[in-house]
Order: sequence, then C-alpha cells, then structure tokens
Amino acid sequence: MAARPVNVLITGANRGLGLEMVKQILEAQRPVKNLFACCRDPDGPRAEALRTLAKKHPNISISRLDATDLCSIKECSQKVGTLVGTEGLNLLINNAGFMSKSTLQETTPEDMQYTFNTNEFLPHLRVGAKASKMPGMSTRKAAVVNISSVLGSMQAVKESYSYFSAVSYRISKAALNMLTLCGAEELKKDEILFALLHPGWVRTDMGGEEGEIDTPESVQGMLHVMASLTEKQNGAFLDYKGEPIPW
Amino acid sequence: MAARPVNVLITGANRGLGLEMVKQILEAQRPVKNLFACCRDPDGPRAEALRTLAKKHPNISISRLDATDLCSIKECSQKVGTLVGTEGLNLLINNAGFMSKSTLQETTPEDMQYTFNTNEFLPHLRVGAKASKMPGMSTRKAAVVNISSVLGSMQAVKESYSYFSAVSYRISKAALNMLTLCGAEELKKDEILFALLHPGWVRTDMGGEEGEIDTPESVQGMLHVMASLTEKQNGAFLDYKGEPIPW
Ligand SMILES: NC(=O)c1ccc[n+]([C@@H]2O[C@H](COP(=O)([O-])OP(=O)(O)OC[C@H]3O[C@@H](n4cnc5c(N)ncnc54)[C@H](OP(=O)(O)O)[C@@H]3O)[C@@H](O)[C@H]2O)c1
Ligand SMILES: NC(=O)c1ccc[n+]([C@@H]2O[C@H](COP(=O)([O-])OP(=O)(O)OC[C@H]3O[C@@H](n4cnc5c(N)ncnc54)[C@H](OP(=O)(O)O)[C@@H]3O)[C@@H](O)[C@H]2O)c1
Repeated sequence: MAARPVNVLITGANRGLGLEMVKQILEAQRPVKNLFACCRDPDGPRAEALRTLAKKHPNISISRLDATDLCSIKECSQKVGTLVGTEGLNLLINNAGFMSKSTLQETTPEDMQYTFNTNEFLPHLRVGAKASKMPGMSTRKAAVVNISSVLGSMQAVKESYSYFSAVSYRISKAALNMLTLCGAEELKKDEILFALLHPGWVRTDMGGEEGEIDTPESVQGMLHVMASLTEKQNGAFLDYKGEPIPW
Repeated sequence: MAARPVNVLITGANRGLGLEMVKQILEAQRPVKNLFACCRDPDGPRAEALRTLAKKHPNISISRLDATDLCSIKECSQKVGTLVGTEGLNLLINNAGFMSKSTLQETTPEDMQYTFNTNEFLPHLRVGAKASKMPGMSTRKAAVVNISSVLGSMQAVKESYSYFSAVSYRISKAALNMLTLCGAEELKKDEILFALLHPGWVRTDMGGEEGEIDTPESVQGMLHVMASLTEKQNGAFLDYKGEPIPW
C-alpha cells in the first residue's frame, strides 16, 4: 500500500534544525502534500534560505508564526485549515526555541513567560486523525512532536548545571515536557500522539561550535525516530537516537 | 547548646497549610525570633484568623506579599531586611499556591504565567547563612523550602490525569521543581539549602473534602522533614513523611 501524502507543520523553520527538517522531509521517500514551514519573519533576511528552497518546492508553504504571539498562531492555524481542509494536519513539530544562558540570580519573571501552540492546531490534528483510516497512533496519522532538550530533565541538573546554567531555558523545557505529557493523556482518545525529542547537542547557532554533532545527523535521527513512533511511545521523551531520557 | 532563634518567612500564611505552619512553628520547641506571615490582603476578611493569632504572638509579623506581584515581593523583602538586619533570614517557605483544574484544551497562555520570590530574598538568606556559625546546611541556617505537589511529577501524569487534569497547576509545579533544582546547584556554595515538599493530599480549600489527611497531620510531617534536612537532601523532592517523590 503506497503511503498517503501527509500535511506537516514545522515552527522555527528558517534556520538551524527547523530548516534542516524541511530539507530532509522533502528529500525523504514518504510523500508530503503540504509542508508548512513557519517562521517569525517570512519576508526578512533570516528567511532567505527558506524562500529559496520554497521556490523549488511548491509543496512548501511559508507561514508567519511567532511562538510568543498568540494572534500570529491563530492566523497561521486558519491558513492551515483552509489549505488542508478535510484532510487535516498530520504532524505538528514545535521546534522554535530560544535559549538564555542566565543563572537563577540573573533570571527575571519576564524570562519565565512562554506560550504554546498546540491548542490552536488541535482541530486540524483531529481532522487528520479521523481522515486517516490507519489504526493506532503514528506521525503519519496525527501527532505533536515537541522539540525539548536534555536540559529540561530534572535528573540532568546536578551533572550539567555548573558548566551550563540556562535557568529559564531549563524551566521552559520542563514546562513543555509536562504540557506534552498532559496532551498525551488528554488526546489519546482522539488518537493524537504526543512525543518529546532531544536533538542531541548540535552545532547550530544555539548549540554553538562546541556541539557534538552536525545538523543533518541530528535531523536524520529525529526523523527516523518520528517515523517509528506508535501508541507505545505516546508521551515518551527520546533523544535523536531513540534512547529514552529520564525526566 | 541551646538552639539560636531563627527568622522564618511563610507565604500564603492566612489560611490552609500556611496558617497551620504558622501555628505549629510557634508551638514548637525550636525558638523563632521573627515569623513573617505573608498574605495578599493582610487587612481583609481572609486574614482574620492570622490577625487574631498575631495579637497573641508578638513575634509574628504580618506582611503583604502577592506571589504574582513583583513589587509587593520587593517591598516585603525590604521590610524583612530592616527587621532581621545582620541576623538575616534562615528559612523561606514558598507555600502560596493556586490551582486551576482545567484541561489542556481549556488552558490559555495567561494561565501559564507565574513569578517566583526566591531571588528577592537571597540577600537575606546569604546573611543568614553567614551569621549562623553552623557547618553544612540546614533549615535553621539558610534554606528555601518550596511547597510543590506530586502533580508536578512527570511520572505521576499517566496514573492521575484521567481523574485530575489541572494542566497549568502541573506545569507551574514542574517549573517550580526545576527552579528549585537550579537553586540547589547555584547556591550550594553559599550553603543555602533548597528542597521541595509535597504536603500529601490534604483537606484544605484547595485539597477539598475528599483529601486523605488533615492539615495538622500534613504540617506536622512537613515541619519534621524540614528539621531533618541537611546538605544530603539539597535539591530533594520529599513528601510530608520524608519519602522521595520521583520527578
Ligand atoms: N542545538 C542544540 O544543541 C539543541 C539542543 C537541545 C535542544 N534544542 C532545541 O532544538 C530546537 C531548535 O534549535 P536550533 O539549535 O535549531 O536553534 P537555532 O539555530 O537558534 O534556531 C532557532 C529557531 O527558532 C526560531 N525562533 C526563536 N524564537 C522564536 C519565536 N518566538 N517564534 C518563532 N520562531 C522562533 C528561530 O527563528 P529566528 O530566525 O526568527 O530567530 C530559529 O528558526 C529548539 O527548540 C531548541 O531548544 C537544540
Ligand atoms: N491541599 C493539598 O492537598 C495540596 C496538595 C499538594 C500541594 N499543595 C500545595 O500546598 C500549598 C498550600 O495549599 P493549601 O492546600 O493550603 O491551599 P489553600 O487552602 O487554597 O490556601 C492557599 C494559600 O495560598 C494563598 N495564595 C494564593 N494565591 C496567592 C498569591 N498570588 N499570592 C499570595 N498568596 C496566594 C492563599 O491566599 P488567599 O487567601 O489570599 O487566596 C492561601 O493563603 C500550595 O502551594 C499547594 O499547591 C496542596
């Protein structure tokens, strides 16, 4: 049975891991109908590489989405709804992220604010789940993959804090982890899968030059893990090799 | 050696677990010099029981502190500084809390905002740690005890979500847990202890009538655990019986 083309949305798709995900998803065997590549400033200089890619690939749809601006999320969701219609959305990858390296003492209440997209896209994911005639759960049916970090792991604080504080980043990833677990429980009746991925320590703008792996290796790993997810991994926290990360 | 009197601050001290902590700390053998009993509305009807208690106990100092209002936290910290002077603060108990029982789908970005007190009181805790001539760490020297919940545990989501969603509450407690772990690492050089306590499921306004234990039992347990904390428990997450809770 030939795989049905899917609709995928990626946030923070203009550079780093997000841009590489767009590239590799297009090159993969598995067909994609609409690939919503979201970024904060589609017309600005930071989205040039994405625009060039979109010229060659008509199934890329560049959409504006600022993860801290609920209005932009709602507008994006409306556009997605119009384009996917009764097929729905199959995979939402929340990849956009920002890291401040501050210590606890440098952290202000403002650093602690963050929003989340998932609720806005749930209607389309529900349609995606229903339109798919597949049993169980998968990222080709209906799934939310949140890009977290090992720095969001409580158990990792002791060993990593002295050389990497990043307090508000750790807190926002721990919060994302909890949100994802709640989503996994709440939406399993709708057969929408929720999972958390850690990309590894990657040489992007965020990861820096001392990172351990390159972007293509991380993304290849994460896409492989995503393709393997079933209802057994609902609510799992895995690294780019598929290894579970302790909470 | 007779125990030195300590300075303690409790938030949300006007009712529930906070008010019971104030009562039991006053009754305990261990002497308290200043007990800062903080609440949002010291002159309002919800603080009546606390005001009655303060009339009988001159070492209670009722202070205004709204955990969502940084200005009130700063003002409270200034007042504390004036009163404790070169003795400093020995124990900060962040107990104030609010629970919304909403599901993920009912949760809005506004529900996700929260602040934290700890930075504002650190200078006084540092003074407390230095003024104490005791080695190691303890809640009679310098400590931050954050009242968390088993609902902030990632591992508890699966078993508890179906009968208790409380998404934003779980997220804020997970965030508090991460913050506390970061504090434990960052401030161990200053010999300030950080710990997380789960009070049990207690019959307060928040816990409801179906709670498993009464307020005095929970608080007795938590004060006993607090008294037993040393540098070995720095960063620990314990219930009111002293049992560790998985992350
Ligand atoms: N690199 C690592 O070692 C590593 C390790 C663990 C986890 N991660 C996670 O992996 C994800 C991608 O990281 P990366 O290494 O690719 O980072 P990056 O190279 O710094 O790229 C970050 C991306 O997120 C976007 N972004 C930031 N804030 C945004 C906002 N408010 N709204 C929309 N987009 C926003 C950026 O867009 P602009 O161009 O507009 O800024 C950019 O596209 C993040 O969630 C990060 O936490 C990375
Ligand atoms: N009861 C349980 O079963 C249970 C279980 C696990 C964890 N906990 C935790 O234990 C702590 C105390 O809970 P409780 O059962 O005593 O709850 P409670 O009876 O509802 O009392 C809550 C207290 O927090 C105060 N508060 C709420 N929002 C505040 C704010 N923004 N600023 C300052 N004070 C604020 C309230 O003051 P007002 O009177 O002004 O509202 C009140 O004093 C909380 O952190 C809670 O999450 C309780």
